[in-house]
Parts: sequence; C-alpha cells; structure tokens
Amino acid sequence: MITSPHNEKLKQIRKLGSRRERERSGLFVVEGEDLVAAAKDARAEPQLVLVAGEDVEPELLAEVSTLGSGTRVIGVYRQRWTNPGGELSVYLHGVGDPGNVGAIIRAAHALCDGPVVLGPGCADPYSPKAVRASMGSVFARPPARAELDELSGTKLALHAGAEATVAQVGLEPPVVVCLGAERAGLPAGTIELTDASARIPMRPKGPDSLNVAMAATVALYELGRRMAGHG
Amino acid sequence: MITSPHNEKLKQIRKLGSRRERERSGLFVVEGEDLVAAAKDARAEPQLVLVAGEDVEPELLAEVSTLGSGTRVIGVYRQRWTNPGGELSVYLHGVGDPGNVGAIIRAAHALCDGPVVLGPGCADPYSPKAVRASMGSVFARPPARAELDELSGTKLALHAGAEATVAQVGLEPPVVVCLGAERAGLPAGTIELTDASARIPMRPKGPDSLNVAMAATVALYELGRRMAGHG
Repeated sequence: MITSPHNEKLKQIRKLGSRRERERSGLFVVEGEDLVAAAKDARAEPQLVLVAGEDVEPELLAEVSTLGSGTRVIGVYRQRWTNPGGELSVYLHGVGDPGNVGAIIRAAHALCDGPVVLGPGCADPYSPKAVRASMGSVFARPPARAELDELSGTKLALHAGAEATVAQVGLEPPVVVCLGAERAGLPAGTIELTDASARIPMRPKGPDSLNVAMAATVALYELGRRMAGHG
Repeated sequence: MITSPHNEKLKQIRKLGSRRERERSGLFVVEGEDLVAAAKDARAEPQLVLVAGEDVEPELLAEVSTLGSGTRVIGVYRQRWTNPGGELSVYLHGVGDPGNVGAIIRAAHALCDGPVVLGPGCADPYSPKAVRASMGSVFARPPARAELDELSGTKLALHAGAEATVAQVGLEPPVVVCLGAERAGLPAGTIELTDASARIPMRPKGPDSLNVAMAATVALYELGRRMAGHG
C-alpha cells in the first residue's frame, strides 16, 4: 500500500499530466473504472494500475487525479497509434480542444471504419480530457498522425461556405472528411489540397455553424449512410 | 468606475452563480463579447452590462467571472422561455450536464424549427456553462419547460435498443425527439408515454452509444432531412 506522495508511481502519474512527458514516454493516464474497463475490452495491457484502498491510500490517488476525490482507479497505458485508412475516415487540422478531439474519436468509432487522423495544431488525444471524452474509444480505435498531403482517397472539406451539402456532394470512396478549428475553420491552403467541399444544411436564421464535434458526427452519419447505399 | 468588490452590481452577478437565485430572479449572467453580441443580435436588452476598464476595474470583473482573467464584458439578462411547438422539436429528460443542454439548444437552433423542451432533472439552460455551450442560441431560440404528457405530436424516443433507425421510423409531423441522460437513457415509464422509438445506426463493434448531444444532433439532422422531403 502506497502511503507516501513521493512514491515513484505517483510521481510518474503526475508527470504524465504534461503533453511533453506523454510524447517522450509514449504513455498516458486513464482515470476511473469505466475507462479502465474499456481498456480491458480492447485488450490494452496496463503498465500500472492503482486501486484506491488496495494499492494506494485514496487521498493520494485523488491528489494525482484530474477528477479529484472519489477516483477509484488510475491506470497507465502505452499509447497506440494507427495508420490512416478505411473507406470513411476523418482528418482534423488545428482542432485544439481536447474534448472535441475525444468526442470525434468516439463518433468515428461509432460511425465509420477509419481512424481520426490528427494534422497540425490538434489537441493531444491522450490528454485526460480527450481520453474521457472518447469514452474509451481511443483504445478500440486509436488515432493516426499525418499531414493532409500524405492521405489518399477523396478529401472532402467540411465548411459552412461550401455550395453542396453532405447529402448532395459526389462521393468516390475512400473518403476522408476534413475539418478545421471551431472558429477559424480549415485554412485556405488546406482547402486547396482537398478534392471537394460540403456543408451541413442548416435552417435560415440559425447559428453560423455547429460545434466541430457535432458537425463531424453529422457528416460521418450522412456520408456513411450514403456509402452504405441507403441514401 | 466600480472599484470595490462590495459593489451591489458585482454582488448581484456573484449571486446569480446559484441556480436558486437565477430561478428566483428570472435573470442570468452572460460572459464575454461574443455572447453579449449574440444577445444584441437577438434583441435581448441587458439589465446590466459591465465593461472591464470602463465600468469596472478588470480584476474585479475577472473575480466575478467563471472564465477568470481576461473577461472583457459581463451582462445580466432576463431569461426567456417559450412554449413547446414546431414541426420538429426536442424533449430532454434528466440531461444533467449543462454543456450537453447548451449544445443541444445550439443544434436545435441550427436544425429544427421548435425549441428544446426541458423535462424533469435537466441542467439549468441559463447556467454559465450551458449558455456558453449554446453559443448564444439560448437568446435566439429560448428553451421551454414541460412534462412529456403535456406535449402534442408524435413523441419519438431515441434509444439504442430501438428496432427502427431514425432513417426508417415512421414520421407523422409534428415530431418531438425525446432523449434521456447519457447513461441511464429514458426511464421505462417515459418510453411508455412515447409513440415510437428509433436509434442511430452504428457500426458493429463500435461504442454502445453516442454522447447525448451528438445523438440529438444526428437525429435532428436525419428527421429534418426526411421531413423536408429529401430522403
């Protein structure tokens, strides 16, 4: 039973709070029973698991957790990365909010066969907030890292200014749906590298845009539906 | 220029941090230039606006803001509530996360003509987090409050166990899409009060469910598309 805050395992968990340390070590921290169960379902072997009251005093575990008191378990796992691919996948450019990155990983796991490919300026999918927002999908469907010009297939830019809607745009699989940051959107130089553009149809007098995670989800739903031949 | 933390206006803003006080007064707080601009676009008249460096010392404004330092403006507005209605609208039961409630208000504003109707156990749509997640849509499309049995039209329960998908289920407008909390879903007693059930089609071996805000967005997109006769 760990009873000292200076314990090496607790120190490691604390250090993994920094993106630099996560990238250096290739490890990340998973908090809570649900996410540790999701890791097990995906056959991810922990490097380390600490259970409150068994392996470590509950207050010490709470102190290294971003969730605070009540945290029952924390695990350390090796990051998994995959290669771009699949009939339908996602490319993100400059999506800096970890909650959005995690939510899009979850949506892609639910709605398409390819991974989420992270381009420049994206949040770390292995930060605590992104892992939590992915609800563990980061284990079952690891992300990829690439630049847009390294990807093959039809690159479809999703942006509000496009003429065609996601229900109308021509589809030649494999398709990579490309999204930019919440406000800035995809940079013009990135849109130039894509093959087509589409928008989510929205009501007149509505908001200018949807949240990037919701836009990604609707696009994956619609394109997946069309590619499955139902539409 | 307000220079004392004991100023009555600052006290009022602090008090409006509590749901009880928001419900008692019918007022709420809006933080940041974008949301204050959204209020103006929707012709909502502020009860009070404090601009950092003009009306109040910046550090004092930061202290009453949930966003902290760098907050340029805070406004106090009267809550608006509307009645259920529209050809397509949303009913929420037990959705306790204010970020999800705000995101669904934004999605409904973008994708359907009716409001978000809040049933029992929902987060306050006028909490700072919900207002922010709505990106100001709470001004343009105020929420409603009602119990499910007070609503008219086809009540469509969205849950993972339904046989029909949102692309298949019969549609007799007006339609109210009914969603429950993230994990618990709609209680059985509530599902009994609905007219039909539908699910978002998801890939085999994917996650059990989508985040409630993303599920609502996909359902509104698909049903709106079908009701507009494109599907």
